[in-house]
Amino acid sequence: MSHVLVIGAAGMIGRKLVERLVADGQVAGKTITRLTLADVVEPEHPAGLALPVTSIATDFSAPGEAERLIAHAPDVIFHLAAIVSGEAEADFEKGYRINLDGTRLLLEAIRFAGDGYHPRLVFASSIAVFGAPFPEMIADTFHRTPLTSYGTQKAICELLLSDYTRRGFLDGVGIRLPTIVVRPGKPNKAASGFFSGIIREPLNGQEAILPVETDVLHWMASPRAAVGFLLHAAEIDSDRIGADRGLTMPGLAVTVQEEIDTLSKLAGPERTRLIKREPDATIRRIVAGWPRSFDAGRAKGLGFKADKSFEEIVRAYIEDEGIRL
Amino acid sequence: MSHVLVIGAAGMIGRKLVERLVADGQVAGKTITRLTLADVVEPEHPAGLALPVTSIATDFSAPGEAERLIAHAPDVIFHLAAIVSGEAEADFEKGYRINLDGTRLLLEAIRFAGDGYHPRLVFASSIAVFGAPFPEMIADTFHRTPLTSYGTQKAICELLLSDYTRRGFLDGVGIRLPTIVVRPGKPNKAASGFFSGIIREPLNGQEAILPVETDVLHWMASPRAAVGFLLHAAEIDSDRIGADRGLTMPGLAVTVQEEIDTLSKLAGPERTRLIKREPDATIRRIVAGWPRSFDAGRAKGLGFKADKSFEEIVRAYIEDEGIRL
Repeated sequence: MSHVLVIGAAGMIGRKLVERLVADGQVAGKTITRLTLADVVEPEHPAGLALPVTSIATDFSAPGEAERLIAHAPDVIFHLAAIVSGEAEADFEKGYRINLDGTRLLLEAIRFAGDGYHPRLVFASSIAVFGAPFPEMIADTFHRTPLTSYGTQKAICELLLSDYTRRGFLDGVGIRLPTIVVRPGKPNKAASGFFSGIIREPLNGQEAILPVETDVLHWMASPRAAVGFLLHAAEIDSDRIGADRGLTMPGLAVTVQEEIDTLSKLAGPERTRLIKREPDATIRRIVAGWPRSFDAGRAKGLGFKADKSFEEIVRAYIEDEGIRL
Repeated sequence: MSHVLVIGAAGMIGRKLVERLVADGQVAGKTITRLTLADVVEPEHPAGLALPVTSIATDFSAPGEAERLIAHAPDVIFHLAAIVSGEAEADFEKGYRINLDGTRLLLEAIRFAGDGYHPRLVFASSIAVFGAPFPEMIADTFHRTPLTSYGTQKAICELLLSDYTRRGFLDGVGIRLPTIVVRPGKPNKAASGFFSGIIREPLNGQEAILPVETDVLHWMASPRAAVGFLLHAAEIDSDRIGADRGLTMPGLAVTVQEEIDTLSKLAGPERTRLIKREPDATIRRIVAGWPRSFDAGRAKGLGFKADKSFEEIVRAYIEDEGIRL
């Protein structure tokens, strides 16, 4: 018997997580008896729903909103709500208000709830907590020195999560998600957008822009893998995690060339001609500051599973999005 | 021509720093023309003062206080104010209010000051940002996973300092001070207090409590070295520091046994009989989670200088405090 709260349920990963929760009917081995979905816009009720669901439109950084979200003491909380990196960089105050203060208000609301309330809180962090210079392979003990305000906010929330967990106020797990590829939907202007775009657009018969060289290596996971990480983070034994509650998720280190080759293999070489090379110095510089490859041994030891191959990632995208080739 | 603000000026390090500033008459190669001293109790005016000084009693975490402190645009700010580790652990809310929110209010006041205001902000951090398990030698790239609320608050402030510096709001340098030994004066609430107490109290003919085993190894620096770190942090070229504004200061790795042996050597073996062993499980647990030995290569490369030996540390204490043996 489990009440599950998803904050950020209207986002891409949030929607896919909710679909899985509804399909599975359980989380961490317990039947889901109630689902609360929150986002800045009211999340849609998932199809095929056979359990009580509450959708809440909220700015969770506003006074009293965190208390409202946990009013019915959810057992498992997935906290995915965030201002994304580009916006957090463009709007300093908004980024700190949502990504840091909002999260802290949630932690404080849980601390003050009383009655022995002690939920599992799964927090979506990011590899943006890391900053260059990097070693070839980034170990779990490598320091977090973010080079963006977004990464700073995520790194701070991880520290708070560990301290609140250590003090016994809640049971937190922060998972650092790789770049999610292939993101469904329309192209966006995020610096990392092309990693998805060069697969997604050609599969839809559209042109895609490639702003970097084909030897660029990046750390990726599919939306399916990301949802798997979240669900696993909800179920692992707290004692096995230890004091540091932030975990780098296992991903795949994939080059742009491997992406193009996979597209060619699955959809034919003519599709790759839709990828237009337009070198962009700004994007190349940003990408050069991103981490490429992680050890992720802690997370693997705790049973988190990466995608098996980039081909599997693209096949899953084609299947999940009903792409007709 | 430099206006210097010291927040936490009534504390032990603060007072010693102010003494040095007055004695030197300059900081970062510029003549000090004005000194503002702030603390929760009004700091004493230093002796031999030949320049305008303002003493302010303030809870700098109260609304408007940070703005008041920087009202006359100090060029160099030393931010030493903190609730110490034991108290921050005992009083969760007070620790976060002073150590995190107070610091953030200061950063925000600087950000909002306008007129191109861009001070050097020297922030006293701590090796408490590190948490076990540790390698034998802790590299500068080792992650910060604090095991106390105090360490969490310091680690968060370092992240904020780096982000505010990167965004161009100020010019921050966070220096992770080793445990300061020998602290003069009375015992404080820090769990690390005994490292000083077992030297200080016997030198004064008083009993000292030793709550841990004698093989405990710890990372130490003298008050003289700490003041030297602060002054050097005020003068080093910002560009040389890089994006990560937190620096582990060079210290000495000293065992409790070495401390006792040094006391015996300098003051006679009978003094060591004043050290009473009273194992304290809480303090032992806290100390076990503390780091022991660091590489500190970044700081050394930037010109920060450690004490030469523990004997030098004790001799400096005897000299500075006018102890008669």
